[in-house]
Amino acid sequence: MATKNNFEPQWINKAPKKGSFRSIFKYGDPNGFKHPNTKLLDELKQKFNLSDEDFKKKETTGNELVDLNVESKLSIAQVEKFIEICGKENVSSKEYERLKFSSGKTIEEAMQLRVGVVNKITDLVVHPRTKIEISEIVKYCDQHKIPVYVYGGGSSVNFGFYPEKGGITLVLSTHLNKIVKFNELNQTATIEAGIMGPAFEELLNNAPKYYGSKHEFTCGHFPQSFEYSTVGGWFVTLGSGQQSSYYGDAGDLVLGVEMISPSGTITTKNYPATATGPKILDIIKGSEGTLGIVVELTWKIFRHQPKNRQYFSFIFPTWEDAVNASREISQGEFGMPAVFRISDAEETHHGLKLYGIEDTIFDKLMKARGFKPMQRCLFLGTADGDKQFAKNIKSKVKTICKKNGAMNLTSYPVKKWEPGRYKDPYLREDLMDYGVLIDTLETSVNWDNLHEVHQKCRNFIKSRPDTICMTHASHFYEQGTNLYFIFIIKENDIKAYREFQEGILDQIEKSGGSLSHHHGVGRMIAKWMPKHLGENQMNVLRALKQHFDPNNIMNPGEQLGL
Amino acid sequence: MATKNNFEPQWINKAPKKGSFRSIFKYGDPNGFKHPNTKLLDELKQKFNLSDEDFKKKETTGNELVDLNVESKLSIAQVEKFIEICGKENVSSKEYERLKFSSGKTIEEAMQLRVGVVNKITDLVVHPRTKIEISEIVKYCDQHKIPVYVYGGGSSVNFGFYPEKGGITLVLSTHLNKIVKFNELNQTATIEAGIMGPAFEELLNNAPKYYGSKHEFTCGHFPQSFEYSTVGGWFVTLGSGQQSSYYGDAGDLVLGVEMISPSGTITTKNYPATATGPKILDIIKGSEGTLGIVVELTWKIFRHQPKNRQYFSFIFPTWEDAVNASREISQGEFGMPAVFRISDAEETHHGLKLYGIEDTIFDKLMKARGFKPMQRCLFLGTADGDKQFAKNIKSKVKTICKKNGAMNLTSYPVKKWEPGRYKDPYLREDLMDYGVLIDTLETSVNWDNLHEVHQKCRNFIKSRPDTICMTHASHFYEQGTNLYFIFIIKENDIKAYREFQEGILDQIEKSGGSLSHHHGVGRMIAKWMPKHLGENQMNVLRALKQHFDPNNIMNPGEQLGL
Repeated sequence: MATKNNFEPQWINKAPKKGSFRSIFKYGDPNGFKHPNTKLLDELKQKFNLSDEDFKKKETTGNELVDLNVESKLSIAQVEKFIEICGKENVSSKEYERLKFSSGKTIEEAMQLRVGVVNKITDLVVHPRTKIEISEIVKYCDQHKIPVYVYGGGSSVNFGFYPEKGGITLVLSTHLNKIVKFNELNQTATIEAGIMGPAFEELLNNAPKYYGSKHEFTCGHFPQSFEYSTVGGWFVTLGSGQQSSYYGDAGDLVLGVEMISPSGTITTKNYPATATGPKILDIIKGSEGTLGIVVELTWKIFRHQPKNRQYFSFIFPTWEDAVNASREISQGEFGMPAVFRISDAEETHHGLKLYGIEDTIFDKLMKARGFKPMQRCLFLGTADGDKQFAKNIKSKVKTICKKNGAMNLTSYPVKKWEPGRYKDPYLREDLMDYGVLIDTLETSVNWDNLHEVHQKCRNFIKSRPDTICMTHASHFYEQGTNLYFIFIIKENDIKAYREFQEGILDQIEKSGGSLSHHHGVGRMIAKWMPKHLGENQMNVLRALKQHFDPNNIMNPGEQLGL
Repeated sequence: MATKNNFEPQWINKAPKKGSFRSIFKYGDPNGFKHPNTKLLDELKQKFNLSDEDFKKKETTGNELVDLNVESKLSIAQVEKFIEICGKENVSSKEYERLKFSSGKTIEEAMQLRVGVVNKITDLVVHPRTKIEISEIVKYCDQHKIPVYVYGGGSSVNFGFYPEKGGITLVLSTHLNKIVKFNELNQTATIEAGIMGPAFEELLNNAPKYYGSKHEFTCGHFPQSFEYSTVGGWFVTLGSGQQSSYYGDAGDLVLGVEMISPSGTITTKNYPATATGPKILDIIKGSEGTLGIVVELTWKIFRHQPKNRQYFSFIFPTWEDAVNASREISQGEFGMPAVFRISDAEETHHGLKLYGIEDTIFDKLMKARGFKPMQRCLFLGTADGDKQFAKNIKSKVKTICKKNGAMNLTSYPVKKWEPGRYKDPYLREDLMDYGVLIDTLETSVNWDNLHEVHQKCRNFIKSRPDTICMTHASHFYEQGTNLYFIFIIKENDIKAYREFQEGILDQIEKSGGSLSHHHGVGRMIAKWMPKHLGENQMNVLRALKQHFDPNNIMNPGEQLGL
């Protein structure tokens, strides 16, 4: 067992070198870091049987400069055309740029880039300035059968914009990042698809200043990738934020869109509800770039009332107790918590370390009252909305949790969790420097198969020797929830890693979970789609694809299993 | 002006004669009646310049027996095939049956049937017993290009199952009317599509008895046609119930479906949420029989807690005040009222009569406080769910209404409205006996175009001499609401009536309202669809149609504008 000492690995604390591979795969802010704390490091050492020595020399860093020589399949005339449409400064054929905008945030890509392995990259990076330019680009690409990929914020964890067929990659966030229309009466903001989360939220929070509105607003959507993803990306991948139990998933939050496709432009209307046949908006939801390019969205906005927010945390004797309480809350018809998150025993074990609860007065109290490590389960929650409404939720949650054997941990743990909630992905680079991989897969379940899916997937993950598996549920509905598996392993063989990942996806599918709750499909889980949805449903998707994109230029190559 | 006296027209008080036209077009229960009260009758007399004399002789009654001789286009072999599949007792080629199951509840159909005018009728009525039989029927009809129409509860007000192309009509409510699976844990009920509202609700309310559940449940969906419509019909037409502001619209209440189409059977999964591409469930929503036959649905059910229900009613000085308060409530983030209904000045005028408020102490108080007839507007509401949650809604609503100038009318008016809420359609037959037509059209709006749509449509309706036009909004969302126009005219010329109706639809479309909030499209408003949605969206619907139903046998002939 690792002994406690003052040793700390030399975590990288500087922004990656300009032009390096690391500058491409590193998550988020180049100057953003979150190092594993001592408790976590001790756990890892113990788990993987490592010593301080193993954390003295980095296995890989990806600090090498990108130096590729990959030919472009586009002709000079074609490149000229894109320059003509978007201007020279908005078109790049440099290899570094091409690699950067071809790379998402899967572990597999990071593993490869760390050792300089590059697969397919886009032929040209284009930063369109207007939707008219996008329309011209799509038309031209359709005529010349040039594949079109769209880069949102680059946080895809499933090869969602991987340029399988080459062609061009459009970067929407460079120019198409504004609120086009702010409508306080309707509580909507019409935005260009490339706007990033923080910019959008800042404008809404300060709407009185920017738009002369009476109220401040919030977008209500806070995925872990919030800081590095675009609103258009949230929608087309059916994302889900950390407060979704109250605000809804990204698919629920969009009232209307404009999408440019080879078969023409669709502009749906912004009615709050209609009965005029199947809604084209619903077809665009989750289309992941395969049908066309969403260029504009009308987003439902909410009052920004942080003063009303209620915080609460509980510890349950077991996972079953936490699940039972969560179901009662979800079906209680008193409104839903915003943050609503239960961790299974193993995640609780690590979470208590990570949020600094271990060895505090809370920890002592928990132990004294018989909440045993590796059995007890943490519940974190907040309530938003009107103050009385939020207070009533807190009071009901408290009653239900107590009824299910929980102890009140006050607001302390959730307030410890909240400020760091976007930071956990930063741990990844530090750990990978020493060959430790941290990755996630996720599913949705109904209440009646939650335990089966959890147990089977967890059993599979844990069947691999020396593997940490933490699970939480964090998006709740009357009819069920999601399960989010975080696994940490020591591995440097890509093939072995991929096999392990595929094994987990197999388990998710076989045990009856959904293939994805909110990560989307991309290319990573594409091959499970026909079995999961059935051929008849796949045929509907294929028919839509054929209609919108007969020449297969929109995000072609296995995306969505098409 | 009509003088008040004791005269009462001889309203028909008996079930229609068996085999008569009236037995087909009469709404609802053959023994169900709701006669106009004296106050309403006086209003009508005054409005249409009628005397008691005019209410002594009925213009039409439709009491004549149906005696048709309409050939069937099906061959004997074809009829034999349906008998082979469903049994002799479940197949009828009798003209009366064929007319009955071809007739919906439009005013136009009633006008025609009253004078014995029959247009197209189905060739054969078939009552399938199982979904396997439906599958065989669809397969056979696809091979032989026989059109298939589905009769749910028959309450369509837009020719939604009018057998434009002949063929067969399936009646689902005869046999396919059971709860297949009740799941308390998931709070779902899987049902056959032909189950009628009251049967479904009765099973759910008494779930402890029938299914040994811990709680009683409710379906949450109570359209005016509740008693005479099927759950499958609610879903495929995107219906909306009188408590939708809290429970959601029919499209929101279905978790999964099984649909049989010529291209195969689709069974969607019942996950609470997924990110696995565009959802086929969403495509089936609102497909109105054009893609296939929904045979089974998994419905989200809610706790039945009538003891928690809160009631409230208010009167506002003006429509603007009522709308402003409604918007504040809808955007207030304290949960939504269940019944949530505001009437414009003219509807309030009639409503106060209808609900027996006129000349009561309330009326005197209102007048004393300056709430002027033909300006004042009625607000009716209830709150469901957890008791504290519902009480908080009531308290918030009260505060907002008062702030917007309203006077509290206590629970009295809404409690007067509630028991009769399914009965208003019964007024129709009584009035039509004397040539007075009462009909409705509806739309959805955002807050920022509500007044424009209301005013323009109302102006058009009122531009017809001697026309009563009552409007309410009764389905609320953060981003807007619906507008429901009820108009009463004296007319017996079908062509003139149709022109008037089309004029209103023109106004709805031109003024920027949705073509339908919850009545659906059917054939009545089909011709506005391409302009309303645009050709690109229509082409998507056409592509879906082509995929699911390449031989155009599913509800063919203009449905949805296809």
